[in-house]
Amino acid sequence: MADPHRDHVRTIVVALGGNAILQPGQAGTAEEQLANVDRTCRQIAKMIEAGYRVVVTHGNGPQVGNLLIQNAEAAKVVPALPMDMCGAESQGLIGYMMQNRLQAALADLGLTRPVVTIVTQTVVSAGDPSFQKPTKPVGPFYTEVKAKKAMAEKGETWIEDAGRGWRRVVPSPDPVRIVEEPAIKTMIEAGAVVICVGGGGIPVVEEGAHYRGVEAVIDKDLGGARLALNVGADTFMILTDVRKVAINYKSPQQVDLNRLTIEELRRYQAEGHFRAGSMGPKVEACRRFVAGGGRRAVIASLEEALQALDGEAGTQIVETIEAKLAGS
Amino acid sequence: MADPHRDHVRTIVVALGGNAILQPGQAGTAEEQLANVDRTCRQIAKMIEAGYRVVVTHGNGPQVGNLLIQNAEAAKVVPALPMDMCGAESQGLIGYMMQNRLQAALADLGLTRPVVTIVTQTVVSAGDPSFQKPTKPVGPFYTEVKAKKAMAEKGETWIEDAGRGWRRVVPSPDPVRIVEEPAIKTMIEAGAVVICVGGGGIPVVEEGAHYRGVEAVIDKDLGGARLALNVGADTFMILTDVRKVAINYKSPQQVDLNRLTIEELRRYQAEGHFRAGSMGPKVEACRRFVAGGGRRAVIASLEEALQALDGEAGTQIVETIEAKLAGS
Repeated sequence: MADPHRDHVRTIVVALGGNAILQPGQAGTAEEQLANVDRTCRQIAKMIEAGYRVVVTHGNGPQVGNLLIQNAEAAKVVPALPMDMCGAESQGLIGYMMQNRLQAALADLGLTRPVVTIVTQTVVSAGDPSFQKPTKPVGPFYTEVKAKKAMAEKGETWIEDAGRGWRRVVPSPDPVRIVEEPAIKTMIEAGAVVICVGGGGIPVVEEGAHYRGVEAVIDKDLGGARLALNVGADTFMILTDVRKVAINYKSPQQVDLNRLTIEELRRYQAEGHFRAGSMGPKVEACRRFVAGGGRRAVIASLEEALQALDGEAGTQIVETIEAKLAGS
Repeated sequence: MADPHRDHVRTIVVALGGNAILQPGQAGTAEEQLANVDRTCRQIAKMIEAGYRVVVTHGNGPQVGNLLIQNAEAAKVVPALPMDMCGAESQGLIGYMMQNRLQAALADLGLTRPVVTIVTQTVVSAGDPSFQKPTKPVGPFYTEVKAKKAMAEKGETWIEDAGRGWRRVVPSPDPVRIVEEPAIKTMIEAGAVVICVGGGGIPVVEEGAHYRGVEAVIDKDLGGARLALNVGADTFMILTDVRKVAINYKSPQQVDLNRLTIEELRRYQAEGHFRAGSMGPKVEACRRFVAGGGRRAVIASLEEALQALDGEAGTQIVETIEAKLAGS
């Protein structure tokens, strides 16, 4: 059953995938990125028009990838910056595009809301097991010679990607805490549309009362779930390029899921239905949000965002059988 | 005379020069930039400890310069982004470094304050005369052949810099309005240390109710004065690498100025004491702040920031002879 108090607030954390900004096959010109962001923001503006309080978070993989290439190509002239700084740059870039296009989309609907991007650091544990076993590929493909040089000189981890060359892998630690959470809450309470925790947040580890940036990538959906719990969101919504979560994906037995409990989700996870680099972290982020006390998580396509918010599209993930049967 | 109401609030807008982040002669490694930012933030933390409410703005020339070089060097692999987007990236980068180091400096003083970076757009007029006459050099030096190609193909303006090659020049329009002003005010009122209007803000022109990014550079001190007026700051302080403003600078007749009125400042401006690319925009920014109703503007060195805030160092610029004689 919906909690009336939460229903009243109706804060929605929307996590946008990389394709909301830069689509596969696109080179990533300014015009392409702005056009994609504009299309995405028109959907978000409709949610705001419908009365929801929206907080936006987003991936930054393609943008950080481009920054890493630019850093590598210019390294003889300009010192290459580490990944945490490239992540910060991508938050500025994507935040600017989103606030600019969201302001425009809201204006076209006759709405005035402050739209604000908050540069965000996310605490990860220095003891996170991923630091012992980096798995997340980032940046350009290199030759074996260059990759082995980077491994020897900088202590980086590189792996061979069949046929495409060598690629650096970095840790993907769990998000523990969002450093700028108080500021994010203040802005939400002031009625602003807040863009934050971009790319899962800039990963930092605690050193006493200080934070130190680390070269790692936080999964943006897990970061989004952390954010959604921290701001007391009613709904955590992941917008992606599929309409629904499916089991037996791309097999004759594929079944698209409309509504399920976290218990059912957990069973499907255990059965291996969700791929690690793709739907895996998305369903895990939804599970964490609902298991942590969130009312509802939704995975849907950008085009069906508003219907999914009304419970009429996408995959709805709730805690109990009662909630599943009750509808949104 | 000091206005008691303003004295009570004591909001200080501090504008940091490029050397607060990246010093001349430094290549710009992550370690260099973080060390400079750390040193700067320790001074700012002392102001906060002394009871001032601080808003920080900063230049971004060296960082955008590096980004433009990286974009140019990698242009065959990754589409080069326009200047407004590079400016947004630099706001993310510098904001992250500052909030990280300022949080550390505050923690070391036993202070807890939210520190937040807000990505900022600044409206400029499409009719600003600078769009007809670009003068601000940006990015790397090119050969004549490459420069003339960019002029012919992209309509850019390039000029020859005696002996060093050709360099692109862009407009430097006046800051008219800060788009994110309401959000900035909300965060200041909530007690946060706000970092914003980086590099003078990302320049945008109004197109109906929309904003469109333009390739231009807003002077960070003029942007800072605009910010200081908009948030009702008591003091607008520019921290730079000289201890005081001087007339007859670097001549036997050099006189360092301790306190002066905006009328005296205007006379010195008319007499040509302040160079266009250097002290000129700083004193003009101070003049605008005080002429616009601000109580006091200060130009000082980073090392003497706190003494200057107490009126005991730097150059103090006030409106009237009475205020000049009264002391801070």
